[in-house]
Amino acid sequence: MKVVITGGAGFIGLRLGAELLQRGSLTAPNGAQEAIDSLLLFDVNAPAVRPDWADERVVFQTGDISDAATVSALIDRDDISVFHLASVVSGGGERDFDLAMRVNLHGGLNVFEACRARAGLPRVVFASSIAVFGGASMPGVVGDTVKQTPQTTYGITKSICELLVNDYSRKGFFDGRSARLPTVIVRPGKPNQAASSFVSGLFREPLNGEVCSIPVAPETPMPLLGYRSIVGGFIALHEAEGAALGDDRAVSLPSFTVTVAEMIEALKRVAGERPLGEIVFERDPFIEEICAGWPKDAAHDRATALGLPKDASLDAIVEDYIEDYL
Amino acid sequence: MKVVITGGAGFIGLRLGAELLQRGSLTAPNGAQEAIDSLLLFDVNAPAVRPDWADERVVFQTGDISDAATVSALIDRDDISVFHLASVVSGGGERDFDLAMRVNLHGGLNVFEACRARAGLPRVVFASSIAVFGGASMPGVVGDTVKQTPQTTYGITKSICELLVNDYSRKGFFDGRSARLPTVIVRPGKPNQAASSFVSGLFREPLNGEVCSIPVAPETPMPLLGYRSIVGGFIALHEAEGAALGDDRAVSLPSFTVTVAEMIEALKRVAGERPLGEIVFERDPFIEEICAGWPKDAAHDRATALGLPKDASLDAIVEDYIEDYL
Repeated sequence: MKVVITGGAGFIGLRLGAELLQRGSLTAPNGAQEAIDSLLLFDVNAPAVRPDWADERVVFQTGDISDAATVSALIDRDDISVFHLASVVSGGGERDFDLAMRVNLHGGLNVFEACRARAGLPRVVFASSIAVFGGASMPGVVGDTVKQTPQTTYGITKSICELLVNDYSRKGFFDGRSARLPTVIVRPGKPNQAASSFVSGLFREPLNGEVCSIPVAPETPMPLLGYRSIVGGFIALHEAEGAALGDDRAVSLPSFTVTVAEMIEALKRVAGERPLGEIVFERDPFIEEICAGWPKDAAHDRATALGLPKDASLDAIVEDYIEDYL
Repeated sequence: MKVVITGGAGFIGLRLGAELLQRGSLTAPNGAQEAIDSLLLFDVNAPAVRPDWADERVVFQTGDISDAATVSALIDRDDISVFHLASVVSGGGERDFDLAMRVNLHGGLNVFEACRARAGLPRVVFASSIAVFGGASMPGVVGDTVKQTPQTTYGITKSICELLVNDYSRKGFFDGRSARLPTVIVRPGKPNQAASSFVSGLFREPLNGEVCSIPVAPETPMPLLGYRSIVGGFIALHEAEGAALGDDRAVSLPSFTVTVAEMIEALKRVAGERPLGEIVFERDPFIEEICAGWPKDAAHDRATALGLPKDASLDAIVEDYIEDYL
């Protein structure tokens, strides 16, 4: 079978690709575990260097997800699964509404229509976000049945795509699942346009001996998950029985809710004798306002019942990062 | 100022147009009550006969709402308000997914983009539906803060447009409001593709001395509202202060929850000595399934607080229909 990952050259897309190759198979549209003979990683840019795990099964392709013909050409077999990760991120979407609509809404529609056009019933895993929650009526803990009143264009487009995944699945156009991601840590490399980008920076920059600037208050709580569990969650959600998902195919992934101050404590605990770059607080109203609108805590009983993984602890996530990247 | 009604040749569109002309003015983007000097009723078809209330201010225009240039040309002044009623209905949307997406989703986007392009901050009233609610997690009574998990493509597109109205309003692109309609009674004329069409037929056909076929069980409950209150609700929601709506601009209109059996009792009470055509039950699984997925009861405390009207009783709605149409 073939697997397509949109946003495949991003941090999570690449890790998901590597994990899928190592695993070797997925549940195909015919219901059987089938070997992955083709892995297509689609993104707006190719990775700077071809990863060493990318064997002859792997193709990197660049293009514009808002072009229907481009997307249709990617999804060209009936024995296929799609992980749809391509997205303008939260801060980027607030800065450029039209780009967020083009990539997140119309790009999503292109992916969903291309999957619908296949003869099989492809499994489609859509990367949503807990940024679908927000607004004055949001409770302290958001569960899967809480109303979505997002306060960013990013969240709006994710919420819309969750609705579309539900309806395309109900209509039998494909077998869709949406995974709502909390803030993912620890992203290596450079900061990105996500309003939550500083959370990875909080661990990454000090461990690299660099100064890190935090744009929010130390008591700000954020639901987090490590990248290993994010990737594991995508695959477990792909493999889950459709019937177990019922008529609402979206689940919030497990997460830890910790404050910025608690993140710094964990960093210091795990770093031990390592020298750390300085952490300074320089509040940024643009970032603060976006983060203040997000949920403080996300329930994940449904995800847990489906067998989606959760890291052992915040400390374990930081240890994984040190093992994988330092 | 100019007023545009999409779906303007439909039953509610025409009644809204007549009511607006009688009222004579609305709150314009500049915040003042301004006289309506132009009323554009846009629809896929023109009314068979030009209504007698349609004076020289009224233009009927036909066209395809899924064509962006067509819609942009309708919304051609900055001193404008838009009532966006054009929609494929519930049963029609289940039969033709692509048509529902084209008219309801892409048509909605065209209206919202055209309003965004104006220099003022037009008030936009979007006709949503309580069909946005549904699914296994739906509570017995749906309030404005209940999660939307619609089980029809019609409901999905309405839910998506509510999200878009919220975000376009948050971004300051226009001043939007969404009115969630319950089943509207009593529609004159012919049955339509709405799964709830039989509810108007239940009153209309017997009063015309015709046989009426009911596709659901007598104990089926449906939230209803009379057309006078629907039209009054659209106008009151247009006139409401934006600040009173907060960050979620959608409200369920007031409604009565009554069973089919109670509707028949009301009909007989109001008809008195009038001869009535026979009502027969011929259950239709397609209609039953759609109706079974809808909410049984809708809270409307928020709508009431905003001053949106509710008919005095079910009997009063039937009396209004007899007065207006028989």
